[in-house]
Amino acid sequence: MAEPLSTDEIDQQLNELPGWEYKDDKLTKEFSFDNFRDAMSFITRLSYEAEEQVHHPEIFNVYNTVEISLSTHDAGGKVTEKDIALAKTIESLHNN
Amino acid sequence: MAEPLSTDEIDQQLNELPGWEYKDDKLTKEFSFDNFRDAMSFITRLSYEAEEQVHHPEIFNVYNTVEISLSTHDAGGKVTEKDIALAKTIESLHNN
Repeated sequence: MAEPLSTDEIDQQLNELPGWEYKDDKLTKEFSFDNFRDAMSFITRLSYEAEEQVHHPEIFNVYNTVEISLSTHDAGGKVTEKDIALAKTIESLHNN
Repeated sequence: MAEPLSTDEIDQQLNELPGWEYKDDKLTKEFSFDNFRDAMSFITRLSYEAEEQVHHPEIFNVYNTVEISLSTHDAGGKVTEKDIALAKTIESLHNN
């Protein structure tokens, strides 16, 4: 089972995750796209990674925006290395 | 441009929309599925209807749940017949 990361550990990881914030025990970032189709494509694309990592973000879509929030259910809703790993995957998807 | 519906008109429509609630100026329903894949399939399926109706819900996904919220941006964020129409479409998708 993944252990919760300390605030220091999270802050260190955030250096490599531009635009991501740590708030309310979650890692969060809002992504903006040109339109709904692009937002939906991003959601679909990341859904495969979530399944592969057996770890699932909260996904909030409003038209061309997608807010992603990450925490680990099995670790009391705290941020673990599983969230860091998924955040990095999502970043690389978004930058490709 | 779609006109906001009155509370009475909304209440009347809600009779045909089981599980839907009117709160914070929006029509809302939470759908539950067996797993993430089924939730994502539902989101993908309804995304085509949203594009066709040129009307887009707020979509909040947490693993196997999908919360849909509907209001009309062009009508000051109030509920209009466009929201009723999309809610009915979403219901029919979910029941098929």
